[in-house]
Amino acid sequence: MDNIVNTSSSVEQQAMNAKKASMVLRQASIEQKNKFLMALAATLEENEEEILKENTKDLEAAKNITSAMKRRLNLTKEIIMGMAKSVREIAEAKDPVGKVVTEVIRPNGLDIVRVRVPIGVIAVIFESRPNVIIDVAALCVKSGNAVIVRGGKEAMLSNNALAICILKALEQSGLPVYTVQQLEDKRHEAIGELVQLEDYLDLVIPRGREELIRMVSEKSKVAVIKHVRGLCHLYIDSEADAKKAIRIAVNAKTSNPSTCNSIETLLIHKDIAGKVMPELLKKLFEKNVEVRGDKNVCKYDLRCVVANEEDWSTEYLDLILSIKMVDSYEDAVAHIQKYSSGLTDAIITENKSRAEDFLKVIDSATVLVNASNRLTDGGVFGLGAEIGISTSRIHMRGPMGLEDLTVTRYNVLGTGQIRE
Amino acid sequence: MDNIVNTSSSVEQQAMNAKKASMVLRQASIEQKNKFLMALAATLEENEEEILKENTKDLEAAKNITSAMKRRLNLTKEIIMGMAKSVREIAEAKDPVGKVVTEVIRPNGLDIVRVRVPIGVIAVIFESRPNVIIDVAALCVKSGNAVIVRGGKEAMLSNNALAICILKALEQSGLPVYTVQQLEDKRHEAIGELVQLEDYLDLVIPRGREELIRMVSEKSKVAVIKHVRGLCHLYIDSEADAKKAIRIAVNAKTSNPSTCNSIETLLIHKDIAGKVMPELLKKLFEKNVEVRGDKNVCKYDLRCVVANEEDWSTEYLDLILSIKMVDSYEDAVAHIQKYSSGLTDAIITENKSRAEDFLKVIDSATVLVNASNRLTDGGVFGLGAEIGISTSRIHMRGPMGLEDLTVTRYNVLGTGQIRE
Repeated sequence: MDNIVNTSSSVEQQAMNAKKASMVLRQASIEQKNKFLMALAATLEENEEEILKENTKDLEAAKNITSAMKRRLNLTKEIIMGMAKSVREIAEAKDPVGKVVTEVIRPNGLDIVRVRVPIGVIAVIFESRPNVIIDVAALCVKSGNAVIVRGGKEAMLSNNALAICILKALEQSGLPVYTVQQLEDKRHEAIGELVQLEDYLDLVIPRGREELIRMVSEKSKVAVIKHVRGLCHLYIDSEADAKKAIRIAVNAKTSNPSTCNSIETLLIHKDIAGKVMPELLKKLFEKNVEVRGDKNVCKYDLRCVVANEEDWSTEYLDLILSIKMVDSYEDAVAHIQKYSSGLTDAIITENKSRAEDFLKVIDSATVLVNASNRLTDGGVFGLGAEIGISTSRIHMRGPMGLEDLTVTRYNVLGTGQIRE
Repeated sequence: MDNIVNTSSSVEQQAMNAKKASMVLRQASIEQKNKFLMALAATLEENEEEILKENTKDLEAAKNITSAMKRRLNLTKEIIMGMAKSVREIAEAKDPVGKVVTEVIRPNGLDIVRVRVPIGVIAVIFESRPNVIIDVAALCVKSGNAVIVRGGKEAMLSNNALAICILKALEQSGLPVYTVQQLEDKRHEAIGELVQLEDYLDLVIPRGREELIRMVSEKSKVAVIKHVRGLCHLYIDSEADAKKAIRIAVNAKTSNPSTCNSIETLLIHKDIAGKVMPELLKKLFEKNVEVRGDKNVCKYDLRCVVANEEDWSTEYLDLILSIKMVDSYEDAVAHIQKYSSGLTDAIITENKSRAEDFLKVIDSATVLVNASNRLTDGGVFGLGAEIGISTSRIHMRGPMGLEDLTVTRYNVLGTGQIRE
């Protein structure tokens, strides 16, 4: 793996190289970008065994990590095939660069065209899940950006194996080899140094632990789009359809508990609890979910643990669910407004005006009505893959797809106009 | 003016109050927001004399400022009437909040709606030009945001007089009085303290000197959209229409030299210099422009000063223009790529494919063909007023209007869908 680790390269040198690469990428043709993507998909398939071998070493070395982290770290043949498939889907997507957002002819005859262009150089700091490096590389190249990635040290060997695939595909497509780089300096401080390089870097996307995101926000001199994990809620309203509610609640907790769009807290209106709780608890226990409920919830089943104040603000990312019974819709809203991390919250109700009110008063990046929070995803939303889910309040909010890695600027076509 | 200066209020308290106000603003009706705007326009007109009196005091106190700064500070009856007119135009604009950007029904029946919502709490740090406070207040309220403003100390009395008008209009329309606040703590350090309050603040827009912007970028824990002043270029190509070129060049330099979209450097192709230079220099000298040219330019007129290396990177914001003769289109592009601040650069040419190439290779926020750089303006672009011109590379680039003070999020309407 020596060909991608060059210890003589400083953080600044890597950022400078990324900047140079971004000048080429900015003007790369859609054919060349897609050539890279098709090469990457093929290389992933060809190197599947090698990737799995390195991933196994990472898993063996990983001792002090939680079972949730282990689940995220683990690659399988199916996951690698899924990565290749996702890369090919990105190749099929339209080029977001050059897309005309608006065009107006002004009274003075000026033709004002707002077009999408790449952002420039992006840094993505992430943890665990090694497939992120592939999604990031594919999305950034397709959107005309250069990128510097820094994965978690627990996934180092897996990431290196995947980075080799990326490098091969860059070489095959004739794009600059510095288009996608892993941060070579493995010190934790190197991240802080990188995000200060405002002359070369345009955007940082930190995904992961609160402490990581806080550190990046503090040190960064460039824009940060935060991708914090989610403290997500599902509220079952008094006018919910009980069957839908149970199905959605079980899915929102158990379909992949280590993901940020899984729910951590369920709120249930007291008037529907009798119809929902027995069946819901039965299904949750069948799926080995630990339930931490308030005293009204615990009455339904002896296996429930009593929740304490801390539970309402804890992101378990595991098969644990806190459940609270509320006296009113307003109480549910107040609880969500107080504890939500703003990633994705949902309501189950057949009352249309209450659903509309919920969409207005809950200010999370994604708000759902009668659907599982787990659907908050770039693929499900039709964006192709996603680089993450933005919980920042500028640029965009929610699942961040291809087009969201571009920005608008203005081309103005005149015939001699001046400012009067 | 004691009613707006409350020294017991800390920076954090102001930010907390802004956050509370933003929760109300986020859901304010278009009628209420427009009521505020109409009241503000009327109050400005009614208080015109008082505002001018305070502005005169500021001008008298301002000793150590440049003539360009003085021009920006100076208010007149016409400027105040213009401010009221601009506020009424913002009232007439459509509500950007709630606008549906895209809506797709996915194969599983999910209805995915991407809508515009306010950003939240914005801080705007600006200098000189007191009318900025009115534009900022009007644009932020219309787009549903709370705002904390900090103007330059040289304009303090003018800003206070205008802030009283804003407060009156807030009271008349029933919106929270903390919707628009001046930062009360007058220490320079208070700005650094404000931009660290990530729990309350969502965006900082610094407009002004490089040092100010650098300080804000360094200290800020929240997103920054930079509005640096402009080092803007106009390139007159070998295939330019000489008449258009002269007219545009004179306008781009002299129509308001203290603004960021005025040009500082003119590049002219050697093959067209003979046709353009004599007439252009004559017109520039008539307008009292000091010309700093390279040796080829200076040959045309004894009144030209010889430019040095520093001139190519100096933003004069005054009646001074550096002119360089280039051997080729490529040389012009290389010069602009090296020295441009990325705000607005222009080409004059009748060669269509060259114009298209220029729009591709010059990566400034606004790039113009056959039109004056001075047209880079929210009003001219049809955005209504502007809060400034963004030179950042995320969220948006160029003149920042009403809609740019919102951000998209997702509403998802389901009928029981889960993640399979």
